[in-house]
Order: sequence, then C-alpha cells, then structure tokens
Amino acid sequence: MTDSLLLVPAGIDTYRQPVVYMTEDCHICRAEGFAAQTRIRIDLGTRWIVATLNVVATGGWLKSDQAALSAPAWSALAAYPGCRGQFSHPEPAVSASLIRAKAYGKRLSKKDFGAIVGDTLNNRLSEIELAAFLTACTGDRLDENETVALTQAMLDAGDRLDWGGRKILDKHCVGGLPGNRTTPIVVGIVAAAGELIPKTSSRAITSPAGTADTMEVMAPVNLDAAALRAVAESEGGCVVWGGALNLSPADDYFIRIERPLDLDSTGQLVASVLSKKAAVGSTHVLIDIPVGPTAKVRSRSAADILGARLTAVGRQIGLNVELHVSDGAGPVGHGIGPALEAMDVLAVLRCQANAPQDLRSRALDLAGGLLDIASGDEGKGRSRAEALLDSRAAEKKFMAICMAQGGFREPEPAPQQIEILAPRSGILNAIDNRLIARIAKLAGAPRQKSAGVRLGVRLGEKVEAGQPLYSIHSATRGELAYARNYAGTHPEAFSICEEVT
Amino acid sequence: MTDSLLLVPAGIDTYRQPVVYMTEDCHICRAEGFAAQTRIRIDLGTRWIVATLNVVATGGWLKSDQAALSAPAWSALAAYPGCRGQFSHPEPAVSASLIRAKAYGKRLSKKDFGAIVGDTLNNRLSEIELAAFLTACTGDRLDENETVALTQAMLDAGDRLDWGGRKILDKHCVGGLPGNRTTPIVVGIVAAAGELIPKTSSRAITSPAGTADTMEVMAPVNLDAAALRAVAESEGGCVVWGGALNLSPADDYFIRIERPLDLDSTGQLVASVLSKKAAVGSTHVLIDIPVGPTAKVRSRSAADILGARLTAVGRQIGLNVELHVSDGAGPVGHGIGPALEAMDVLAVLRCQANAPQDLRSRALDLAGGLLDIASGDEGKGRSRAEALLDSRAAEKKFMAICMAQGGFREPEPAPQQIEILAPRSGILNAIDNRLIARIAKLAGAPRQKSAGVRLGVRLGEKVEAGQPLYSIHSATRGELAYARNYAGTHPEAFSICEEVT
Repeated sequence: MTDSLLLVPAGIDTYRQPVVYMTEDCHICRAEGFAAQTRIRIDLGTRWIVATLNVVATGGWLKSDQAALSAPAWSALAAYPGCRGQFSHPEPAVSASLIRAKAYGKRLSKKDFGAIVGDTLNNRLSEIELAAFLTACTGDRLDENETVALTQAMLDAGDRLDWGGRKILDKHCVGGLPGNRTTPIVVGIVAAAGELIPKTSSRAITSPAGTADTMEVMAPVNLDAAALRAVAESEGGCVVWGGALNLSPADDYFIRIERPLDLDSTGQLVASVLSKKAAVGSTHVLIDIPVGPTAKVRSRSAADILGARLTAVGRQIGLNVELHVSDGAGPVGHGIGPALEAMDVLAVLRCQANAPQDLRSRALDLAGGLLDIASGDEGKGRSRAEALLDSRAAEKKFMAICMAQGGFREPEPAPQQIEILAPRSGILNAIDNRLIARIAKLAGAPRQKSAGVRLGVRLGEKVEAGQPLYSIHSATRGELAYARNYAGTHPEAFSICEEVT
Repeated sequence: MTDSLLLVPAGIDTYRQPVVYMTEDCHICRAEGFAAQTRIRIDLGTRWIVATLNVVATGGWLKSDQAALSAPAWSALAAYPGCRGQFSHPEPAVSASLIRAKAYGKRLSKKDFGAIVGDTLNNRLSEIELAAFLTACTGDRLDENETVALTQAMLDAGDRLDWGGRKILDKHCVGGLPGNRTTPIVVGIVAAAGELIPKTSSRAITSPAGTADTMEVMAPVNLDAAALRAVAESEGGCVVWGGALNLSPADDYFIRIERPLDLDSTGQLVASVLSKKAAVGSTHVLIDIPVGPTAKVRSRSAADILGARLTAVGRQIGLNVELHVSDGAGPVGHGIGPALEAMDVLAVLRCQANAPQDLRSRALDLAGGLLDIASGDEGKGRSRAEALLDSRAAEKKFMAICMAQGGFREPEPAPQQIEILAPRSGILNAIDNRLIARIAKLAGAPRQKSAGVRLGVRLGEKVEAGQPLYSIHSATRGELAYARNYAGTHPEAFSICEEVT
C-alpha cells in the first residue's frame, strides 16, 4: 500500500476549505508528484474529499509517514484516530469546464447547474473556482431559464419538507436596508392568527445582520428538520437558521464566497431565495423589495425587473409569489447589528413607548399582506395584524416560539460603546445605507452579536451641532477604534442640511 | 505592546498565498476579534503584508505568544528569527469595490486598474478577489480603452528597460498550439543576423509548456535585468524568464489564478503580452496567431478581432505590432512538454534529419518576418533566415546564448514512458489540441520537465492498427497511470478515418 498514510488532525481551523499537510519527503508526494497547492483526493472507506496540499518542512511537527488534516477536512472525511487515508489525483471536476463556459457567456442547462451544485457540495471545486462561478453569474448574466434551472438544481440537491398539502405562508426581504428586522414580529402576528409560517432564515451575506443572526440573540436557531416541524406544529411558526437544515445546502457554500466578495446577482439571489422557500415546503411567499438610492434595489424599475423574475421563476417551480415594494430610503428601527436589532424587535412586540414606529409599521404591512393571502379576503389583514400586536397576542406567541426553540434570552449590550456627534446643526436629510452598514460591520457585526450601530436621530429630524448622531457598539477595543476611524473619514454617511426657516 | 507577537516560521509552503497561524487563545485573536480566514495586516519595520489567518488549537505545535508564518508570508515580510510583528485589521482594499464594479459590467479607468494592480502586488487582494477580477474580465468584457488602461497600469507598476533608442525586435505567439516552440530558434537566427532581440518569455498558463519552461531545460532562465542586458549586449539575444524580472510584475499574480481556472480573456491577454513587451523595451513586435478548430483562436474572424486589438493597443502605448496569422490545425513538432520540446528545438537548430519540418518552417516564417521588419525591405527575410539556419550560424549563436545565460545542458528523457497504440488502421486526420495538452499536463508537464507526450505519427499520415500513435512520458508512476487512464477514456484525441482508395 504505497498510496496510504496515517491521518492525524492538524489542529488547524481553515474555516471551510479542506487542507491536507504532508512533509516534503513524504513518499506519496514524491511518487505522485504532488506539490504545494495541488488538489488531492483522499479516500477513507466510502467517504472521500478533495483537499488543497500545504507542504510542511521535514523535521517539523509532522512525521513523513503521516498526513495532517485541517479541521474542516478531518470532519468532512469523518476521520478518526489511527485511520489511514488513500491518496490520489482527483479527476478534473466536470463542472470546472462548465464554469469556464459560463465565464465566457454561454448559457447553462439544469444538468450543468446540477453538476456545479453537486461538485460544490462534494468540495470538488476550489474557492477560486466558486469565485469564478459566482462572478460569472453576477448582475443579469443568468437569464430566466437559467435561473429556473439553477433554482431547481439547488432545490434537488437537498431535502424538501412536506406539510401534507396545507397552505404554508412565508416571507422574505431582499435586503439592503440595515435594521429592517420584521420577520420575528411578522411570524409572531401570523402564527397568533392561527396560520402556519415555519420560517427559515439566513445569516448575513453582505449586511451587518441576517434574521438568523438577530433571532439567535433571543433563542437557539440551529434546529434540525424534526425540531423545526415540532415547533411549527405546536406553535404555528418558528424562526430558525436554514443553514443547519439540508434545505438547498449549496446556497451556504455560495454565500461563504459571496460574502467576502460582497457580490449579489439577480439570478443567484432569486435561486437562493426560492430554492430555500420551496425546500421548506412554502406554498405562498410574500417578498418585500425595499427601494432606495442606497438600498440593494435602487429604483422602481429595478424592483419591477427583480419582482418579475421572482414571480416568473416561482411560477415555474410551483410557488405562489406576491410582491411588496416598499420605501427603502434609510435604515429601519434604531439598531443595526444582531443584538441591537433584537432590542428593537422586542420593543415593538412589547408595545413599548420607545419602539421604532417605522419597524412596527413595516411589520404590520407584511403581516397584513400575509393574512390577506391566507384568507383570500384582501384588505382586512392589516387591521387584524394590528389588533394581534396591540393585544400582545403576537408577543405571547413569539415568546412561546422562543421557548419551543430552546429558551428565550434577553439581548446583551456591547461592552465597548462610543457616541458620534453631529458636526453641524440642521436637518438630517439622508443616511447612506451602505456606509452605515460598513461601519456596523467594521464594529464587528454580525460576527460579534452585540456589535453594530445605534441611531440617535431619525431622518427628517432636527439636530444641533455636538448632539449624538449615533453610537458605535463593539465587543473589542480594536474593532471599536477601527469603526470609529472609518466613521471619522466618512462623515458623508449622514447628510445634514441647513434648516429652511 | 499588546498588539505584537514573536514571529516564527511555520515551515509550511502555501505556494504564494501568505498565511499566518495563531493559537485560539492568543491575546491578539481575542482582543482584536480575529477568527479563522480573517485577513490580517502584519507590520515588521517598514514592510507589511496582509495574510489569511488559520487558527491553531491550543497546546499543539504553536505557543500562544507566537504567530507562525507560512513560507511565502515569511519571505514577503523578510522576517528573521526573534523578530516581533505588529498585528492589526487591514484597511479594506480600495480596489475590492472596483472589482465588484467590474463584475457588474462597469468600465474601469487607468487609475482603477492601477489600484487593482497595486493591491495585487501588495498581496492586499485575496485569491477569491483576484479570481473575481479575472472572471469579470473574461471574454470580451474589457473594451479597447480599458485594455490600454490595464496595459499601462501593469507596465507602470514595474521596471522598464532602456536600450538607448535602438530598434529592439520581439516576437510572441498567442498559444494554444502544443509543441509550437519556435522562440529559441527564432532568437538564434535573428541574433545571428546581427539584430537585437532580448527575449523574455513566460511559463505555461494553461499549456503543457511555456517557452521559459522549455528553455530552462537547456539553460538557466532566471536572470536579473543586469544579466539579461549583459547577455543581449554580448550575443544580440537571450531567452529568459520574464517573471524573475520586475517587468509587469502583476502579470505573474494574475497567471497563478488564471492557470487553475484555465481562463484567458482577450483584454487580459493583450495587456499581459504588450505590457511585458513594452517593459522589456521592445519597439517592434511580431505576433503569431495560430488559427485552428482546437487552437486558442478558432477562426480567422476571431484572429482578426484579437489582432486588431493587439495592433490598436500597441499603437496607443507606442509599440509597433505586426501580425502573422498561421495554421493552427494541430500540434507542432514531435514533443509536447518542456524537455520533449527542447529536443525538437535542438534537432532543428542542428539540422538533424529527424528534425520536425513543421517547426522548422514556422520558425523560418517568423524569423524572416522579423528580419523584414528590421531591414524595412520586405520579402528577403525568409531566405536570409534559412541561410543562417542551414549554415549552423543560428545553432552556434543559440549555444553562445545558452553559455552566456549560465551554461548549456542536454534535455534528459523521462524515466517512465508508455506507448499508446492505434486502435484501428486508416489516416490520422485530426488531433485535438486541447485533449492532447491535457494528457501532457496530467503526465506532469510543465511541473515535471521531462513529462509530456511525443507524437509518433503526423497529421495526414497512414497508420496501422496496433502501431504506436504516441508515447506518454512521466517523472512518476502515479502521473503516468493517471495520464494513461485519461488517454484511454478519450480516444477521440486522435481521429483516424478510413483510407480512401
């Protein structure tokens, strides 16, 4: 057996990229001609992975008859102490040539996307190949048929929940609006109305917080499919992280590359959203598209194009999609960042005097829309939603959902905080969503739950020079200093104009 | 000093990607909020790099008051035993947002490309960001102005040789034709004619051998600018690896991502070629564009588009570009792979009876074209070139160049060889350049100098079933087996049709 080596854990966390460490005088490196950064197939029983080789100097921490695996490689291979892996050249991933074709502008079929999704899930595509795929799909480079094909391929690669023909409600917001955390409120209201809304959410891609990040501040979100079903059947709703389920599992691989690249494409966005919705078993989805100069969607016409694509692709995969185009001029609520947004959500559910009215109003619009869809009786939904919120029935339902998911916890404030003061007096007439999101991210959000930004002034309000405009919240001093420096060099994040008297 | 750590070499070769290893309980990880795959700035004196963090389990090979650097990080930082590095969050690379803009189809300016090139050279862009940039430029997504801007930005980022106003000849082949190794022959002839041709060449991007890979089999090619100048001034020509010089240095960073992605774009190709030519001080460049169904350029019209772009961009940066569109139906010469191609080159220069006539003829066309350009007297160049080759003046000059570069060596055959036999009788009427290149690469070329493929039959020749069609050459058994398996499952690499009687 010249092609096997004892596998040992390297004790190195390479995030998701599987890495194998071998010594430069290892007989397999020599016999097979493996060099640094070669991609190597490792078989263990019926499992196999493709890992990137890092070559370790002889006489160091690794013996030459051993191969060490980084944490993600060890876990993907289900390796165990004393096991021996077989090493070989991987066959070229079929889908690598499909990615190349897409980069050159060719159209791909459902079978093509299926191959890319399959190789992605098997870790047979490198990070740079995935980056090339996602870049090649950026903007509008996937047409409608390709988007249907990608959606179906992503859906087929995972599990699909079956609710026995019942009407399953769902909502989604295409994002870009910091602080717009309506989902926990909407789920509380709709479930309190007796409808079924088993909601899965994602973590942030390019924003300071995703719904799953925010919900996790208040309750566990890493539920498996059986636990999700139990919560939804008993309470009518839930808010869990979709990534812990096997629903459209490739999406998570794409996100880990999209996130550092800060890329979103129409086709990827539609496929990502709709494959998740179809996989969780939803039948009726209300999609909120906020429009604003610094939101993800910047014009009514762009919203119409995206909406038409969502509706058309939904129809082709058997999903009833309704749209809600909303005002996306600025951030929603006071907080931006997981814990800060959770505080806003709870203030609305608890009907507190300091609750952000814009967040409340947006949540009522969406819950009302869903109740209209559920009843088929347009127009009465919003007042029903308002009654459920004001009677605290929605709060009671939300707390019951949190308990069913594993227990409620109050959001904790960040240990490091600093206030940013208005440089002049006037009217706050614009907030740049992208800059404010960046400041929140530099402060540590969403990785650090308590990190982010809290707005002290609303759009259209009067401010005096020296009055606090907003505060930055961080878990560490380093991040606080970094976010503050960036804020200091980007005063245009908040635009203050002279008051007209 | 809470933000410094003792730097130690990790003894891990991560190819070009700088990686830093820190323990999970390291005080800097905790204070700064660094997690696995975070990009971290490390300062040492006036040098600094941005490296990717891998987190090492506590109690392993790394102490918690130390940070270990992978080989490329150690060398880029010029670290030394006992030194302490400063750790901080890197500022976001300005060019990351430019790459995103390009992915969405925006046009970039020279300043934009300058920022991308600068951040590339400073290792401030991650591999996936570079992959996104190159994918966003794939195909024809760079227009002429952008190509000029990218070329100029790449040129400005490095050194530029000055030959005091003399006429400097150069040649380039856009590639895609396995075995087409005319450069050493052309340089031998043109320098023997008394012209100045200080040739820099690249290593393979997507092919089994680049000119630098092949030349290195016969003589050292890693010369610095002073050595290049010395060889060219004394012998009139040289064939050195451009990557060891600081001529358009970003090109090498792009190549290391393009190579695994197997991507070439018109704009990148033009910028890569012309920035190198301008940097080496060339004034007149002859560019060979082979056209064939499986060559890089597949049609006369595609050649015309590429040629027009090369000529136009050349004009705008002050370079006189002439084109030579040639037949690219199949491989040139017998060998494919560095050593096997070097053997063909030497057979032509030595006027051996078994020398490949197609390689000889192509080299004479190009050398003749260059001599025409030099004399301004069109038409006499080719016969002059032929006389210099047949008189062995070109061979003598080539050997003198090899000696001046550091010494000539004969190519060595590969230890592992196997013959692939014709499955049927008939006429060999097509060879798939891409499949045969892939077989040569799977055999180990260009990494293993002796590896590759040697053709036993020429296009249009009669073959009998069971006669050797070609042989596969490898440095290791593993690579030989892998290439043979691939060849076995891809018999369409060689198409044999029935003989018409």
